[in-house]
Amino acid sequence: MARIAVTDGMDSRAIQNLVEMGHEVIEKHYSKEELEKGALAKFDAVVVRSATKMTSEVIAASDALTFIGRGGVGVDNIDIEAATSHEMVVCNTPRASTHSVVELTIGHLLTSCRHITRGDRGLRSGLWEKKLLRGSELSGKRLGFIGFGRIAQGVANISNAFGMECHAYDPYLPKEIAKQFNCTLHDDVDSIFSLCTHITIHCNLSEETHHLVNKDRIDMMSGVGADGVTCGNHIVNCARGGIVDENAVLSALESGQLMTAALDVFEVEPAGNNPLLQHQNFHGTPHIGAATAESQSRIGSEMVTLLTDHFDGLKPHSALN
Amino acid sequence: MARIAVTDGMDSRAIQNLVEMGHEVIEKHYSKEELEKGALAKFDAVVVRSATKMTSEVIAASDALTFIGRGGVGVDNIDIEAATSHEMVVCNTPRASTHSVVELTIGHLLTSCRHITRGDRGLRSGLWEKKLLRGSELSGKRLGFIGFGRIAQGVANISNAFGMECHAYDPYLPKEIAKQFNCTLHDDVDSIFSLCTHITIHCNLSEETHHLVNKDRIDMMSGVGADGVTCGNHIVNCARGGIVDENAVLSALESGQLMTAALDVFEVEPAGNNPLLQHQNFHGTPHIGAATAESQSRIGSEMVTLLTDHFDGLKPHSALN
Repeated sequence: MARIAVTDGMDSRAIQNLVEMGHEVIEKHYSKEELEKGALAKFDAVVVRSATKMTSEVIAASDALTFIGRGGVGVDNIDIEAATSHEMVVCNTPRASTHSVVELTIGHLLTSCRHITRGDRGLRSGLWEKKLLRGSELSGKRLGFIGFGRIAQGVANISNAFGMECHAYDPYLPKEIAKQFNCTLHDDVDSIFSLCTHITIHCNLSEETHHLVNKDRIDMMSGVGADGVTCGNHIVNCARGGIVDENAVLSALESGQLMTAALDVFEVEPAGNNPLLQHQNFHGTPHIGAATAESQSRIGSEMVTLLTDHFDGLKPHSALN
Repeated sequence: MARIAVTDGMDSRAIQNLVEMGHEVIEKHYSKEELEKGALAKFDAVVVRSATKMTSEVIAASDALTFIGRGGVGVDNIDIEAATSHEMVVCNTPRASTHSVVELTIGHLLTSCRHITRGDRGLRSGLWEKKLLRGSELSGKRLGFIGFGRIAQGVANISNAFGMECHAYDPYLPKEIAKQFNCTLHDDVDSIFSLCTHITIHCNLSEETHHLVNKDRIDMMSGVGADGVTCGNHIVNCARGGIVDENAVLSALESGQLMTAALDVFEVEPAGNNPLLQHQNFHGTPHIGAATAESQSRIGSEMVTLLTDHFDGLKPHSALN
């Protein structure tokens, strides 16, 4: 039976399952220094989320590991090349959080267009700003997707129910798949900005996508919906910080070129005293896309499957190397 | 041609249309005293929203009126009996705001279950409360409707796309209609509370519905979703203040029996310093269900149709007397 370190938490039922199978599970968070000094040296497997950074140094100091599991999707905190050269398999749980991020994205879109956080702030200050808070409907507007993977597809399904027209840019996606979601796939990203009043980000952070949402592209947005209604421009990012240039967003909120902006992810996290956070037409959440009971439960049960397959000598289905 | 008073505002294109037809339109808000002293005495028609109270005194002092138009749905600010006895037709615009209220309702549900306003307040205070903000998905939960008219039906359509199971109480609705929306109709209101973790109000305010959501009924809610997830209990009201007992809601938030509550309407409006507004798991908006560009534009064009029919000697389609 294996020794498994869980360094950033995991659903308690998943841990119980592993213990019942006879594994030893240690739930403890280690500092960078502890990790580099070999805190994981006597473990067969480690399960992390985003807080534990599995750098090449940490991996070199954890030589007994044969499995690195990432509860969640993004593996930018794991040096996969180093893991490969040390013969460690790296797995994530790509599907477990999908629907939670889908729902948060729709929540941010509606909160934006109806000024819900601003209205609530007013009420808490004794104000009744009904006349200042005229919003617009999602219905009849064009929603532009940057990236059209599983999460975006889920958002498109629900946007269709709202009566939105969906457009996507995703250079890696076959056109047939977009069509299944009643979504038009475009060959260049600029078309999305010139066509759509509402834009939502669902791609990875890479050199190619860093500051993909910048001043020039925000300036291409027309503020007039497909239905002719002057609804303003709206941007939501529940994917990764850094894809959106936050300075450009703040300037566009100040000039009115953006009516609202909603971010769940930031260039620097925690977001600290980022001036964007104080703008009245901004609202945000602290990277909670996967922070639901359902997502955590699915991540836990998927991780149990991955670990079990691995220790049974099978290649886990989400192995990344 | 007619003299038309518009006392609480109307979409500018609608006013322009009426002027182009040759009518004289005066846009001006009058105080209670001015109205009782006959400010509307020389008008043929008046268009109000909720701010102008057409009491029996005001109606008696406005004897030339033959038409009272309410931009919006609720006519609790118009004494219809008095209007009838003075031979004035009363009309509202029942369909114009439907979709705007539908979208706000879904927005409040998602904002509740993902703690969006609380997350945003934290960010604005320099906090990164990711670990405190574990929410739950709408998917897999039972949504209970109190009243299942046009707005509720629109909410049900979108809830189905989210993967919610819909239940409704509406003593005035045939069962077949609920079925069209994949919704189970119940004969008693208590069943909705004992079955559902998420409840949304879509009925009128009347003696029958006053404080329909009270301590006893909130206590019936189980906090466990149809999918077995402990998601807590959630109540949204975008209908009318007074249907929900606000003191009971505050107590239930304090005890944890309610995880969240979201109100767009209040027993007293403006809501002022209602202590409920300060609870961390409450959020609200200042009666903005119909406050969208689309809704205002539809109200305006519908009002033009109603006025035109009336002055042409036809009975307007939404005449209430």
